[in-house]
Amino acid sequence: MQMIDLSHPLHSGMQVYPGDPGVHLSTVLSRDADGADVTAVELGSHSGTHVDAPSHTVPGGRTVSQLALSELTGQALVIGLHGVRAGELIDWPRISDQAGHAVPRLVVLATGWDRHFGTQTYLDHPVISLDAVTGLWNRGMRLLALDTPSPDATMRTDSPAAFAVHEFLLGHDGLIVENLRGASTLPASCTIGFFPLPLAGADGAPVRAVAWLGQPPVFPPAQ
Amino acid sequence: MQMIDLSHPLHSGMQVYPGDPGVHLSTVLSRDADGADVTAVELGSHSGTHVDAPSHTVPGGRTVSQLALSELTGQALVIGLHGVRAGELIDWPRISDQAGHAVPRLVVLATGWDRHFGTQTYLDHPVISLDAVTGLWNRGMRLLALDTPSPDATMRTDSPAAFAVHEFLLGHDGLIVENLRGASTLPASCTIGFFPLPLAGADGAPVRAVAWLGQPPVFPPAQ
Repeated sequence: MQMIDLSHPLHSGMQVYPGDPGVHLSTVLSRDADGADVTAVELGSHSGTHVDAPSHTVPGGRTVSQLALSELTGQALVIGLHGVRAGELIDWPRISDQAGHAVPRLVVLATGWDRHFGTQTYLDHPVISLDAVTGLWNRGMRLLALDTPSPDATMRTDSPAAFAVHEFLLGHDGLIVENLRGASTLPASCTIGFFPLPLAGADGAPVRAVAWLGQPPVFPPAQ
Repeated sequence: MQMIDLSHPLHSGMQVYPGDPGVHLSTVLSRDADGADVTAVELGSHSGTHVDAPSHTVPGGRTVSQLALSELTGQALVIGLHGVRAGELIDWPRISDQAGHAVPRLVVLATGWDRHFGTQTYLDHPVISLDAVTGLWNRGMRLLALDTPSPDATMRTDSPAAFAVHEFLLGHDGLIVENLRGASTLPASCTIGFFPLPLAGADGAPVRAVAWLGQPPVFPPAQ
């Protein structure tokens, strides 16, 4: 049995989504002067590996405070998408065989695009079509996790269609996890947990994302 | 089976250890203007429920980046200390019966002091003696978790003895988790996971702390 860390480390100046607050860590207390080192941390609710709560895009949507841990942990289907290209649209026919007739609440799209994290290429990522997301939703998915910065091609533009997948998933009270690291090393079925920083009332939060391989823990079902 | 959240929510102006950076959350992007809400977060590496890495007090000690998830998850002994008073010293005779001849790597001291979180009384917390910590360490403990701000009476004073427990545990490459919430509701044996924000190279990090009751997950042994 093995635990796999699926989170990007958070460090000063790391890549964030364009327009988001930057990440900055600085030592503000020191062992010599104060008896202990303490770090001041600045980051955004969507820095690094993180969960989007519905309130990210939906007025009145649930915040991070209202997400149950049982929604964020459990058995996951990992859909491998090896060889996917920059900007490529992943549509339903591309993944329907791997999805089958039913999928668990947690679905991971493993594109391997995290190998570009920290470069401009990372932002020219593959995207998932609304029909593919609808297909997964109809088969039971409630949380979509990806190793890209977004399931949509463009966020925060004037075109509503530009973030159709966000609108669909968060609009249906589903969840999105972005910026996974190392997801393409996972088997098709494994147990995963996303453990968010408990940011009160926030639209999202960095998570520690973990996979268990081998004989995985059995988590309680979501209510 | 049940998952219990043992973390304090992080919100603006919440109580932090005296001298530590404050917690501040502010909405910096909005659905109306930007298409999505995004929150800027300021906090300290020891805000809320958090882990102390050895480098908190030990020159050259391990940082959060060097902690394995397997050190932070597993079966825990929860030592109940009902009725403990402000400033009371918890010594070895007080807990040796509950500790027995061997303890797991993870030990939780559940004093119930978290009911005072956010008040001045919280800082006048019970403390644990060095002989009690040494007794637990010699029986196998490698991580001590508490529902108080510190195992020691005073941090960051000119007297080295004032943080003797920190020096002992972190000096032996052990770990400390502080500011647990709700630990006094736990049974004597349960499975616990502490999932830190992956702050690169930092002296500590806020954690999402979770307990599993009932048929708990079985985590891999630490290396």
